[in-house]
Formats: sequence, structure tokens, C-alpha cells
Amino acid sequence: MVLPLESARKILLAATEVITAERIPLEVCWHRVLAERIVSDLDFPPFDRSPLDGYALLASEVCQASHAAPVALKLIETIPAGAVPKKTIENGTASRIMTGAPIPQGATGVVRLEDTEQSGDIVRLFAGEGAEKSICRQGEEIFCGEEVLFPGMLINPGVMGLLAALGVANPLVYRRPRVALLATGSEIVGIDQRLAPGKIRNSNSFMLSAQVSEAGGVAYLLGTAGDSVEVIDEMLVSTQECDLVVTTGGASVGDYDLIGEAFEKQGITILFERVGIKPGMPVIAGIKDNKLYIGLSGNPAAASIAFEQLVRPVLLKMGGCRDFTRQRLKAYLLEPYEKSSNVPRFIWAQWRQDGDQLWVKPLGLQGNGMLKSTCHANALIIIPANSPPLAAGAEVEIELL
Amino acid sequence: MVLPLESARKILLAATEVITAERIPLEVCWHRVLAERIVSDLDFPPFDRSPLDGYALLASEVCQASHAAPVALKLIETIPAGAVPKKTIENGTASRIMTGAPIPQGATGVVRLEDTEQSGDIVRLFAGEGAEKSICRQGEEIFCGEEVLFPGMLINPGVMGLLAALGVANPLVYRRPRVALLATGSEIVGIDQRLAPGKIRNSNSFMLSAQVSEAGGVAYLLGTAGDSVEVIDEMLVSTQECDLVVTTGGASVGDYDLIGEAFEKQGITILFERVGIKPGMPVIAGIKDNKLYIGLSGNPAAASIAFEQLVRPVLLKMGGCRDFTRQRLKAYLLEPYEKSSNVPRFIWAQWRQDGDQLWVKPLGLQGNGMLKSTCHANALIIIPANSPPLAAGAEVEIELL
Repeated sequence: MVLPLESARKILLAATEVITAERIPLEVCWHRVLAERIVSDLDFPPFDRSPLDGYALLASEVCQASHAAPVALKLIETIPAGAVPKKTIENGTASRIMTGAPIPQGATGVVRLEDTEQSGDIVRLFAGEGAEKSICRQGEEIFCGEEVLFPGMLINPGVMGLLAALGVANPLVYRRPRVALLATGSEIVGIDQRLAPGKIRNSNSFMLSAQVSEAGGVAYLLGTAGDSVEVIDEMLVSTQECDLVVTTGGASVGDYDLIGEAFEKQGITILFERVGIKPGMPVIAGIKDNKLYIGLSGNPAAASIAFEQLVRPVLLKMGGCRDFTRQRLKAYLLEPYEKSSNVPRFIWAQWRQDGDQLWVKPLGLQGNGMLKSTCHANALIIIPANSPPLAAGAEVEIELL
Repeated sequence: MVLPLESARKILLAATEVITAERIPLEVCWHRVLAERIVSDLDFPPFDRSPLDGYALLASEVCQASHAAPVALKLIETIPAGAVPKKTIENGTASRIMTGAPIPQGATGVVRLEDTEQSGDIVRLFAGEGAEKSICRQGEEIFCGEEVLFPGMLINPGVMGLLAALGVANPLVYRRPRVALLATGSEIVGIDQRLAPGKIRNSNSFMLSAQVSEAGGVAYLLGTAGDSVEVIDEMLVSTQECDLVVTTGGASVGDYDLIGEAFEKQGITILFERVGIKPGMPVIAGIKDNKLYIGLSGNPAAASIAFEQLVRPVLLKMGGCRDFTRQRLKAYLLEPYEKSSNVPRFIWAQWRQDGDQLWVKPLGLQGNGMLKSTCHANALIIIPANSPPLAAGAEVEIELL
């Protein structure tokens, strides 16, 4: 029985709970996911202020000022940023004002320094049309009481700046999901070991650890467990502190494919065993005590694609994100793609824009055991199930990496 | 004198040197920049291997096998992954083989388990056409001696997996550039402080720290220096361990714009003082002992855009990247954009695809002092210098964030 990809994703997401949140210093919040609603407790800007260095005055007095007919005003105060103005602007007066400083009482406009000339306590203004526009009004960006940031938002530079502006020094963010990664298979050795005949190194745990990081999680590399149910069993027991367990290898139908057996020995309830996705069909998913255990193929490309399509959404949901999918776009194939299959197929690819249109090129080596294409891909082409052979120029959907 | 944006970028990049590299454990290499060329010291796969669970045999013996006319072969060995086959396949024999196991001598094909039936030491095969394709050939992905990874590559999941497969347990990566961030301006207070009248909190250092992280650097927040040249001076002295110093505020022409003065007091040679970019025109850049000092506007949106266009390329070059620009695409304006200026202008925006075409919408509040739009933007619209008012539907260039 092969479960459709969409159904498998739904089962996993339904079994996924959003994890706990923690307060951490704003300094280290970049790329974390906000876990609280932020309501501004102030207007922003908090006061009418000057957006430039110049003179605060009555706009109506200078609206016709020019080099031919300058307007002269009496300087009554200098207002640096951060100060509180003391004098009120009246007819015939102006205050020198710095960028970011509060607009003095009475003033209805600001003329920039470059259009003025000061001599003693007299300032002559050579321009003044639109001076009333050079005031940033209190609350013009944010009202006091306005909801400005929401749970599930990724903390990008703008959000970081806004949290700072509002004085949120220790925002509540979702904890990063902890993911245990375990590689099985008698052929797998550690990356620092020499290769005996028949052996290969554990590339999967490292590749997946990067995918975990990309999805906002923290990877814990448990190492390699060979093909022994006992060793796998012991390692699974050691994953108590983790929110999710992902294994590679041993998820297929062969004699030594022991992940299903190991899961069952742990009392893990199996949710499904094969998913309609190429590459990556062997996927064993189980659950115990609200924790998901997902066994992926031992083939790197297969493990990587299945992680993308099944594990990444789980991690994003767990980590508090509201959107679990990558951006999808329509693009045109630069080369024919002839392979057909009865399940959706994902192909490492590169996309670019040419003229108005987006074009996408499948990358060379797409074997299940291969890694090179994944290094250079910036997109995945999605070939729907039972798609006919596609000619160059055919429209396809791509997912941006 | 306003320096064209391109010239300013060129001056800064010319003054930027790539920083040193360090060897770190592969576990923590995600998103770092590779600093060495990796030449494979092995073929990959390192041996002919089976991509599936099944039987290794002579392909010519089974090419016409079917349910109506099954072929029976004598089982001579079982080869788990990681083992070394001992028997040679000859006419009439087969070895059971697991995914990833080495192909035994003599075998020219593999038939998958699902198309077979085993009884004692006899296996019956019901299909066999194309069995010769089910062998992954030694070196089919990578040759021994092949250059597979290059300095400047970002370590994504694929690169991570490939480094592991090749046994590079401690890759050489570029050190992350250390960036000191200093906020000036008497109106600026720390984020954990209550706002007295006329004051605002230091949002710039936090916003820029996120931009530094995005560009692969490590931010050091020095705090706020008010408007005192002496304090700025002391803080600049404390930045010796940093590779780059970025200040905000005090870079304009007003009385209290003291960054230029502070730079000169430190013996920093000023490279330029104003750049043709909106927002973000006040930029003071200087150099001393091969280290760049860059003073940005105190307005958040202006500081952020100037950082994007001038500081980010510097950080990327410093950190070993080979490409310093974001992806640019052509898109169509969803709304008119009427403002014109004599220098290039950058606008926070959101883009999406509709039908074949990409559309982009300027976000609401774009004031220099504003942050809200930067939270929601996924692109910047680039309006060239001296562009006429643009109607809805006009083609523009966008930069993906």
C-alpha cells in the first residue's frame, strides 16, 4: 500500500503539536519565530518630529519664500534631537531643529538647512513651499494600542527593529525543535573513518542536519547504528529530550530493513509505511507519546526529498510557523523531461528569468544515491503523478529552495 | 557632492579584503562559506552497487523472464549492504543483494525483490528486462581526482552531505566577519528604557544586527553613544577585534552630526560622505589600517536600505562569497509609482506571480523613519534615477529579499 503524498503530509501535520515558547534576549532573536502578539504601548513616532535638519516655523509665513524674495525670521531656540522644545513659534520666529527632534509648539512646518542662511539670530529662508510636509506626525506609522506583530512571524531585520523600537527586550519566541538524526545500515561508517571495501560514509545525517537548521530546528547527530535492532533500539531510547526522531536507511522492504521492527519494539504505533513520492518512497512514520518517529530512505537524494516534502512541514508547524510550504511558481522547461511515474516526482533544478518568463532546467545527475545536483539546485521541479513525457517549453510547477 | 551608488559600492569593495579561514567541525558548517577546493579522493559510488533489494545475476539470462515463463536460478550467496561478496555469478546462479551492497563479480544486472519468489536456494524471476540498468556504477557520480566543491560555495544541505561522503570532517570555511554596531544621537535610548519626552529607542542596531546575520556576519552591539564625539571616540577604540564598524545617526549635515568629526579624530581617512541612493543618502565611509568604517543615516529605513546596497556586498566579499548581489527579476507594478528623484530609489515591496508574469506592489508606509513595511517586504523595487512617474503595469526591476 502506497499512501498518497498529500495524505501522508496531512497525517503527520495532524499529529504535530506546536512546541513551547521561551523568552530570549532580542540580540539573539534573528530568524526565530515570534510566539506572542505585540500591541504597541506608544504612538510611533512618539511625538511630532522633524525628518531633517532645518528650521521649524509657521508654514504660512514662508510658502512664497524664494531667492529673489527671501523671508527673514528671528531665531528663538535651537532644538537638538532628544531635547524638549521650550519656546512656542509665533509670527516672525523660527527654531533651529535637528533631524529627529520634537517639533516645537506652534510650528506648522520645517524648511531644510540647505535652503537657508543664518546670521546671528536672524535666519533667511530662500524656499518654503510644502514646509508643512516636513513634519513626521506622532503615530503616523503606529498607533498606541495597534497590533503590530503576530505569533508565527519570522523575525527578520524589520521585525527585529520594530521589537526594539517598542521596547520588547525579551520577546517570546518558539523554542527551536530538537531533531535526533540516526543513520542505519551496515555499509555506513562515520565521516572521519577510512573506507573499507563495501562501505560508504554517513552523508545523510549531515545533509539532513542542514535541512533541519534550514527549517528552524536544532539537529542532534546520534551517529550510525549499523543493522542491529538492538543498537537502533538503544539509540531511540536516548532521544527522549528530542521533539522528533528521523532515521535514514532500513525503511524499505529488504531483509535488513529493520526500522519498522525497531519502531515496533519501542511501542511506536506505525502510521504509514510507504509514500507516493519519487524519489523517497520508503518512509516509515510512527508515533508514541505524541512524538513522531520518521524513517527515511538511506539514499541521500531520496532522504532529502522526502525530508523536504514530509519532515520540513512538520518542523515548521512544530516551530510555530503558520505557512508550511515553500514558494511555488510556474516555469517553463528548458529541456524535455521524459520520465513518467504513477506518483509525484521531484527534480533538482535551476531556475532563472529570461524576458518575461521563468525557465527551469533539470540538473544532471538525479540518481537516488546522488548528492551533486542538490549542491547546485535552487528549485525543485514538481512532476505530477501520471504526467505524460514533457517537451522542452512545457509548463511545470517549481518550488523555490 | 553626491557620489553615484555604483561608484560608492566599487570604492568599498575595492577596499575590502577577504578575511581568514578556519577549520571547524562539519556538524556546525551549515550556511558557512567554503574556503577550500575539495578534490575527491575516491570514486563515488566507491564500488558498483545495487540501488535496490533484489537478486544480482546475469542480465542476459533473465531478459525475457515473465510470469508465464519465469526463470529459475540457484542462490549462491546473500550480500548485505556493507559486506564484500565472495562468490562469482555464473550461468544459472544469482546472489540475493541488499540496497547499497556491492555487486558480486560476474553479475551484470539486478532484478528487484518484488518480481521474484524464493524457495530454499532456488529463486524464480518473473521479470528481468532492463536488469542491467539496476546497477549504480563505481564513479558514476564523482571520479577520483574530480574537483567537486570550490571556495566561495555556500554550504547548503547538498554540500554538507557531499563533504561528509568525501570524509571532510573539518572543512576550511571563512571566518564570519565581525561587525561592530554603534548608534549615535541624543534622542536614542536603550531598548529596555522607558521613553522620556523627545526620546526613541535604539532600533537601528538591532535591525542592522539581523542584516549582519543575514549576510553571514556576527554583530557586536556597542550600544548608544549620544552626540558626544568623545564617547563615540572611546567606542570606536573598542572595536579593534572587529572587521568592520557601522554606525547609525550623525552622518548628515546638521550641527550634531558628529560621525565625520569622530572618524577624523581617529585618523580614519574619509572615502566619501554622501551617496546617490534614496532613502539612505547620508553615508560617511572611511578607512584606517585596512578596516572600513561606515556611518549610516539614523533613520531606520534609510539605514536599512543603505546597508543592503553598500554594506551587505562588503560583508559578502569579506566572508568569501563570490557573488555580492541579490537575485534581480523583472516585474510589473500593481500600482502606479509617481515619485521621481535624481538618484536610484529603493521601495519595500511584495511580489507574486499571476499567470505567467511577476507582479510587485509597493508597501504602504515608506517614510525614512519607518519600519513596518520592512517587516512584510519580500522584495525591493528599484526605481532608476530620473525615472518618469510610473503607471500601474509599468515594468520595474526588483531585488528578492
